[in-house]
Amino acid sequence: MPLIDTPDIQSALDFTALTVERTMDRLLPRGDDPEAKLFEAMRYSTLGGGRRLRAFFVMASATLFGVSAQAAQRVAAAVEFVHAYSLIHDDLPAMDNDDIRRGQPSCHKRFDEATAILAGDALQALAFEVLAHEDTHGDPAVRIQLVAGLAQAIGPHGMVAGQVADIEAAGKNLSMGQVTRLQRLKTGALISFACSAGATLAKASEPARHALVAYAHDVGLAFQITDDLLDVGGTCEETGKTSGKDVITGKATFVSLLGLERARDQASLLADQAGRHLDMFGDKAELLIQAARYVVERRR
Amino acid sequence: MPLIDTPDIQSALDFTALTVERTMDRLLPRGDDPEAKLFEAMRYSTLGGGRRLRAFFVMASATLFGVSAQAAQRVAAAVEFVHAYSLIHDDLPAMDNDDIRRGQPSCHKRFDEATAILAGDALQALAFEVLAHEDTHGDPAVRIQLVAGLAQAIGPHGMVAGQVADIEAAGKNLSMGQVTRLQRLKTGALISFACSAGATLAKASEPARHALVAYAHDVGLAFQITDDLLDVGGTCEETGKTSGKDVITGKATFVSLLGLERARDQASLLADQAGRHLDMFGDKAELLIQAARYVVERRR
Repeated sequence: MPLIDTPDIQSALDFTALTVERTMDRLLPRGDDPEAKLFEAMRYSTLGGGRRLRAFFVMASATLFGVSAQAAQRVAAAVEFVHAYSLIHDDLPAMDNDDIRRGQPSCHKRFDEATAILAGDALQALAFEVLAHEDTHGDPAVRIQLVAGLAQAIGPHGMVAGQVADIEAAGKNLSMGQVTRLQRLKTGALISFACSAGATLAKASEPARHALVAYAHDVGLAFQITDDLLDVGGTCEETGKTSGKDVITGKATFVSLLGLERARDQASLLADQAGRHLDMFGDKAELLIQAARYVVERRR
Repeated sequence: MPLIDTPDIQSALDFTALTVERTMDRLLPRGDDPEAKLFEAMRYSTLGGGRRLRAFFVMASATLFGVSAQAAQRVAAAVEFVHAYSLIHDDLPAMDNDDIRRGQPSCHKRFDEATAILAGDALQALAFEVLAHEDTHGDPAVRIQLVAGLAQAIGPHGMVAGQVADIEAAGKNLSMGQVTRLQRLKTGALISFACSAGATLAKASEPARHALVAYAHDVGLAFQITDDLLDVGGTCEETGKTSGKDVITGKATFVSLLGLERARDQASLLADQAGRHLDMFGDKAELLIQAARYVVERRR
């Protein structure tokens, strides 16, 4: 049985979100220790919704290679833990100062700043703990490759570097190349890890892995352009977060650089291009191809 | 040639600090990318001093088993990266709000809060990247064991849990058992990882590993009691950080629970007991035995 047993993208997303949420729930700490507040904050910021797009990329790429459900779900959960940690820290007053996340109070509003900082820290560590556990894969060489890949996607040449570059970019006239580089780091690195995780779990061939990295490359860019478009056009209700923020903070975005029309075209072009990287997988890649279209057609 | 080529604890500490600092320098990012500020903050908070006690525990335990210098130094650097990340986040206004660290402005004072949060995040990721790299050990099974051990020492049942429990403890009358449990998590978990890393790198026997964990257990407690003693008695100049903080914030400490005299006796007792766990290693354990005494006799 394939990991995702439906050809329809929306039900595939819903199904993945459900199964990954269950896995996360099992992996997250609980209890009435003195530090229970930490557990609550970790659960609050990871469970209870979200599209789980990164988890979907893990599951859909794993489906290509017939990876076991347990392995794929654990890696998907680890990726979502990292994504959640980054959102918690991003929302802090010293960073984006966002009080709302997914239509709910952000972690530091629901708890407090210290708890939010520490919940983020613990979620990063938990992600590595999950990947390193033998339940994720019987072969330590595969697990260590996942750990190395995730660490690189987060660290000083990954997501965190992108966040710093993003802060430094405020008020500057960045070029298209500079904004693209920034996005690659800030959101692209983790999406790339998610898309190539299936290949790692299956010890797939280098061409197969490269195809997925190329797909991730284009999908990641299309994702960010669409985010920029939604930031301009979306209401708070639609996006679940504060709107028009980039305009207010004077950030150079794909929209400010290209204009609405060309940004939309570019995103659509990238989504098509992403799908074509997967030709070698034939019909099996249908869900990933649909996912690329979903990324640019979503309304939030 | 043994990793540490001196029988004298102070010169062994100095030697370790020097070699590990060099390794850290090599492993830390540098460059003039837009995110160079992140690299600077990571370097600022990790290089340029500190006792490197955790690094010493890695190096001294590795010496017991004839582990390669490169392997030991990389693990020691990873432990120091994690220690530095925890100090950066601890010093933040939302946490301990400490403006001074090692006699210098803390990371968020020298840079800013956002950079400090992200530098901490990147240092955690870098630690895992270093452990996962094949230069750390040829056998992926050893590397994954290190990754799992470090992740557990940090995450929701390790250091971060201890930090939350510590915050929650403010103003409460904690029992001796509760303070001990808190310390185990907050500082003990990482010290335990450091002390047992040599055994992991050498694939040592279970009794050897257990001996080191038992040693770490007692040394960690002795370390915390001494910290509490120094907090009461030390001047800012001696300790390099704000003094008397625990008294001001009304935290239950080993000193508030036991009194000065008994706390001193207890620390000394634990240091002796720590050394005795290493009987099986004979003379080779001399440095670790001396290190236990150093931990309780240090003045800062």
